Amino acid sequence: MSRDLEPERIVRLEDDAVVVLDQRRLPDEMVELRCHDAAELADAIRTLAVRGAPAIGVAAAYGMALAAKQGHDLDRAFDVLAASRPTAVNLRWALDEMCPDPTPERARQLHADEVERCRAMGAHAAGLVPAAARILTHCNAGGLATGGYGSAVGAIRAASERGGVDHVWVDETRPLLQGARLTAFELEALAIPYAVIVDGAAASRMAAGEVDIVITGADRIAANGDTANKIGTYGLAVLAHHHEIPFVIVAPTSTIDPSAATGAAIPIEERDGSEVTGRFPARNPAFDVTPANLIAAIVTEEGVHRAPYSVSLPAPVHSR
Amino acid sequence: MSRDLEPERIVRLEDDAVVVLDQRRLPDEMVELRCHDAAELADAIRTLAVRGAPAIGVAAAYGMALAAKQGHDLDRAFDVLAASRPTAVNLRWALDEMCPDPTPERARQLHADEVERCRAMGAHAAGLVPAAARILTHCNAGGLATGGYGSAVGAIRAASERGGVDHVWVDETRPLLQGARLTAFELEALAIPYAVIVDGAAASRMAAGEVDIVITGADRIAANGDTANKIGTYGLAVLAHHHEIPFVIVAPTSTIDPSAATGAAIPIEERDGSEVTGRFPARNPAFDVTPANLIAAIVTEEGVHRAPYSVSLPAPVHSR
Repeated sequence: MSRDLEPERIVRLEDDAVVVLDQRRLPDEMVELRCHDAAELADAIRTLAVRGAPAIGVAAAYGMALAAKQGHDLDRAFDVLAASRPTAVNLRWALDEMCPDPTPERARQLHADEVERCRAMGAHAAGLVPAAARILTHCNAGGLATGGYGSAVGAIRAASERGGVDHVWVDETRPLLQGARLTAFELEALAIPYAVIVDGAAASRMAAGEVDIVITGADRIAANGDTANKIGTYGLAVLAHHHEIPFVIVAPTSTIDPSAATGAAIPIEERDGSEVTGRFPARNPAFDVTPANLIAAIVTEEGVHRAPYSVSLPAPVHSR
Repeated sequence: MSRDLEPERIVRLEDDAVVVLDQRRLPDEMVELRCHDAAELADAIRTLAVRGAPAIGVAAAYGMALAAKQGHDLDRAFDVLAASRPTAVNLRWALDEMCPDPTPERARQLHADEVERCRAMGAHAAGLVPAAARILTHCNAGGLATGGYGSAVGAIRAASERGGVDHVWVDETRPLLQGARLTAFELEALAIPYAVIVDGAAASRMAAGEVDIVITGADRIAANGDTANKIGTYGLAVLAHHHEIPFVIVAPTSTIDPSAATGAAIPIEERDGSEVTGRFPARNPAFDVTPANLIAAIVTEEGVHRAPYSVSLPAPVHSR
């Protein structure tokens, strides 16, 4: 029996706090972090206690509802949360969605909608996964990253439920090891067969014919389909292209930024070099941009979208 | 002033032991490990206290001289050392070189010759490096890996001495971080400007136009030029090809295995998954094979070799 992560276990609103499962301490400990106002929640987002583009959007929605309950300045809460991380656009989308009605009910609906979108994406994306597939994924685009069910991991789950997944190669995803810590944790719980590999080992798995499809999530998708995602994703897309393996993005429409014409307009967060190495100088861009021409399909809750993405991509869908 | 690592600091023969600088503990501590017989030295090689294809060849040569001094069974010493790691062919080459004359003098000459080869390679390879180059390297192909001066790092040094290196991108090289621990340590000492990056960040540096040339060492070069090197090297070669950046191998002729027709004949060491992650299942191939068609040049002490490598590659040169 697989053990799923309940959406409210990942992030929820209580009377006096937004409560998140502290992803920095997974898989060793299941510890919750209580954020008592928007500033504390922004810290939790900045320091990656809660991470993953859709999940930080959901968390920010709860942060707005909390600020409203507390009678705090909503413009200020909006700004503090919006500034917490620059690349994922879902954060800004969720804050905008909350503005007309910053209530707990609205935030919970937005959360439920995002999880529902994941289930829809998973079903669409599973249609692209061949039988008995060997899938490679990067970072964590699982339930932890989306507030429940997962985007890329959702696609893997849906394919697995059809009986279709032979093996998942999980890039460990340096520097913060979201693959080795979080995706492995989720796949283990879901009883889907997998092995962790170092990021540098993906190429030789492809050359050995052991990868049928690469599936990742996204942090922001430009209007032309250029996609920002965790550092290392772009390299995987080049490798997949070289080995004639389909490279597929799975993300809810809340990840689409119609105001960014191309990937060049997406701000790339540069994090502290100490996340890479404590002793020597380091550069630490957290994301990279994969150009649309390397992406075989972008899957949203609306369906499977193909190039030219400027025509096929839907607009971000409003929550109900 | 730059501080160089003396060859005898990296590995040397004393009366009762082969003494190696324990590379597992760098850069935090400069600790020597004394190996009192061939079996202890084989353990040091297996556990990576001494690593790098030419350096383990040199260490094995000293191990044979020690066994001969101790009156031990030389066939057994040969076998124990030869079995310590499977991929680097320099190990076997050095053992063969020692058989006719397993003396300390012969081992020291072999060591001096390997360092001299590095200097020659460096001079040849520097001619391929453009002015003010931004160089990307992987793993550690420095003095620590060769017993002194370095192969890929030797090329960087030689280019730098000509005034030619603007910046070195140092792949951290998971799982054992030879780039972040050892190459950074060496470049810091040599006062060559560099920054460590996670392996997954190489692609975006290339896309940003910040890499002029990729230079790595090698663990075994097949007769057709296919080259085994640290896991992640093959992916870099694909990325370099995609970005039209020259990908260059620098290695002494002791790394060439004429008996391996192609890379398919090179055994790839699979190390324990616990080097990747202690908690979840992992696969941990230590090397991959870069096909010759992705290699712009192979540089040995004999010069710069170009495709077709089956014609251009020299035979392994005997030590004097």
